[in-house]
Amino acid sequence: MFKLLVKVKEMENLGQEIFHFEIGDSDFRAHQHIIDATKKALDNDHTHYVDSTGIFELKEAICERVEASLGFMPESDQVVVMPSNAIIDFVARSLVNKGEEIICPDPGFSTYIAVMNYTGIKKVGVPLREEDNFSMRIEEIEKRITAKTRLIICNSPNNPTGAVMAKEDIEKLAFLAKKHDVYLLSDEIYSRVIYDGEHYSPSFVDRCLERTIILDGFAKGYSMPGWRLGYAIGPKDVMEKVGLLFQTIYSCTPPFIQYGGIEALRGNQDFIVGRIKQYKTLRDLIVRKLNEIPGVSCRTPGGACYVFPSIKGTGMTSSEFADFALNSAGVALLPGTCFGEHGEGYARLCFTRKPEIIEEACRKLKEAVIEKSGRFNGAYINQ
Amino acid sequence: MFKLLVKVKEMENLGQEIFHFEIGDSDFRAHQHIIDATKKALDNDHTHYVDSTGIFELKEAICERVEASLGFMPESDQVVVMPSNAIIDFVARSLVNKGEEIICPDPGFSTYIAVMNYTGIKKVGVPLREEDNFSMRIEEIEKRITAKTRLIICNSPNNPTGAVMAKEDIEKLAFLAKKHDVYLLSDEIYSRVIYDGEHYSPSFVDRCLERTIILDGFAKGYSMPGWRLGYAIGPKDVMEKVGLLFQTIYSCTPPFIQYGGIEALRGNQDFIVGRIKQYKTLRDLIVRKLNEIPGVSCRTPGGACYVFPSIKGTGMTSSEFADFALNSAGVALLPGTCFGEHGEGYARLCFTRKPEIIEEACRKLKEAVIEKSGRFNGAYINQ
Repeated sequence: MFKLLVKVKEMENLGQEIFHFEIGDSDFRAHQHIIDATKKALDNDHTHYVDSTGIFELKEAICERVEASLGFMPESDQVVVMPSNAIIDFVARSLVNKGEEIICPDPGFSTYIAVMNYTGIKKVGVPLREEDNFSMRIEEIEKRITAKTRLIICNSPNNPTGAVMAKEDIEKLAFLAKKHDVYLLSDEIYSRVIYDGEHYSPSFVDRCLERTIILDGFAKGYSMPGWRLGYAIGPKDVMEKVGLLFQTIYSCTPPFIQYGGIEALRGNQDFIVGRIKQYKTLRDLIVRKLNEIPGVSCRTPGGACYVFPSIKGTGMTSSEFADFALNSAGVALLPGTCFGEHGEGYARLCFTRKPEIIEEACRKLKEAVIEKSGRFNGAYINQ
Repeated sequence: MFKLLVKVKEMENLGQEIFHFEIGDSDFRAHQHIIDATKKALDNDHTHYVDSTGIFELKEAICERVEASLGFMPESDQVVVMPSNAIIDFVARSLVNKGEEIICPDPGFSTYIAVMNYTGIKKVGVPLREEDNFSMRIEEIEKRITAKTRLIICNSPNNPTGAVMAKEDIEKLAFLAKKHDVYLLSDEIYSRVIYDGEHYSPSFVDRCLERTIILDGFAKGYSMPGWRLGYAIGPKDVMEKVGLLFQTIYSCTPPFIQYGGIEALRGNQDFIVGRIKQYKTLRDLIVRKLNEIPGVSCRTPGGACYVFPSIKGTGMTSSEFADFALNSAGVALLPGTCFGEHGEGYARLCFTRKPEIIEEACRKLKEAVIEKSGRFNGAYINQ
């Protein structure tokens, strides 16, 4: 993945036009009222150290948001404000020892894999299959639980597939974790980015008091990617450990950023509805355009900001296809294998881009694929 | 330490007046031109993901600053922009395995100790002695080097003692690390906060190309504590690892914060001179006032924003003294033992407080000590 990103940069430095679909960012601006609240906090000198677990008012706003969306009100010492990505590292380090196991979706978010790699925790992947609409099968999770399993990670809507888990699967998963007495990290970073259906959280069983840890944040739903603002909600003893580790390593989340978060949660929420509608149009556009490319077939994801088309029909591996898309069409996307071995045969594209970018990139990619298959057929005929 | 901080909060919630000397923050505002640059970056929508190792322009400004202050120009891929505290965790995890050893000052910054605790790295402390003006003796470092030593941490000006290492000691240390082929993490977070003498860095030997890693940041010198903005400069292969780990866990440092950093480095530097002068007055005030307290004796630190008085003459341990100061005078300070076993007999106070706070706190503490010793003498006489 990093090699590809370096190549992208080199090509851009050489003046080549690149269509960016590789990073989970958005072409759309942060919302002005959130920017204004952050600026106001800077003017009010909210630039000093604050409580490492988060400003009380933000934690309160988070608890209110959880009550409104998930139906229960956590206590404030169940909450730690910190960058969402970091929660994966901190929760793994707080709960799981080297040699123990974490069960997670495969394909799944690359930070899960990286954290397990460098901590020596064993990754036990549950394959997501296109024919299951990329949802984890509960029986496949259960048969992977061993005496060494400490944590199950679920992620709905899922990165990289965009799959939204069904309510009954979420329920089964919650009870499965309870039955086997393992922790459950529910990565709900895309919980507000849902186009079809609804978001469900396994936290309904224990209200995050026993085993469920919710990971959420502002990057996706509130269009605040570079702010690095997120939060974990979990059992008090786990959050105490996570908070202590965060205090040791980061001291705190910048307070003026937290004031932006308070405004995001407490301000008018209409802006989210508008943006999600916009994203849905982009999703439909990219799915339609990708399906026009020979050898590419793309399902419509229920949530998140990614499509995960099968590229098997092109005859290329994921990695070959990613190189080909970049070199032949200037389209930067990630091979499915960045997200685990079961990502082979797929590619991930982040579609929160301007519609004209999507149209142009897909057109170029289509032309390149057609040209390549033409050349190939020609070469074949000549033999 | 955390118990004490919880107690402080409880007392404040009960309405008690607390004099805060426990945290390395400052009563003084962030500088307006830095706040303005950050606000402008927010308005310009610098709120998206950026290069995880830092915005190029900031890295360039950092390299220029290093050239101006240390006499060599690092290359931009020797720099990673990230929170300063986190550098300790990331460097330790990148370079040192469980069971291997890090040599560091004792007393020393509490994050060094915490990182070694939770990673299973062995802490090998070098005692700092008041009679040496709290400087590390080079021969004491050398005799602690074993086959398992991977890293030496030095920290001048030092937290908690405020000691500034002499030029010849810094030189000897740099050559010692070279001789024994170990990495050297030079924590220079207080490099701009020097009252007497000058700052020297062991990086002059290898220009951070072989073994020296400089840790620096904006919290102290530029009065930007809550921004969580710092940087590491080191050998390219080490910085590549550190940068990769940072990318995995944090994605990047918020870009609008980085624009504040660019302004801090490239803007007029006079504001720092003024603030350091202010701090020096406060240092002299607190040293004078602490030395008026029976049983307390305080050296004048050459740098940083802490005094580290001996409280041995009070007959209390560090921990007892910290409890006593809080309960009897409302003075929150940290026992020296928060920084290692050789901190016993001392207390740390951060003095970047308003002068009237310092005066009032020292007056109350003095009264409390006198009253206590009176009571004690009385009790003794009565027996």
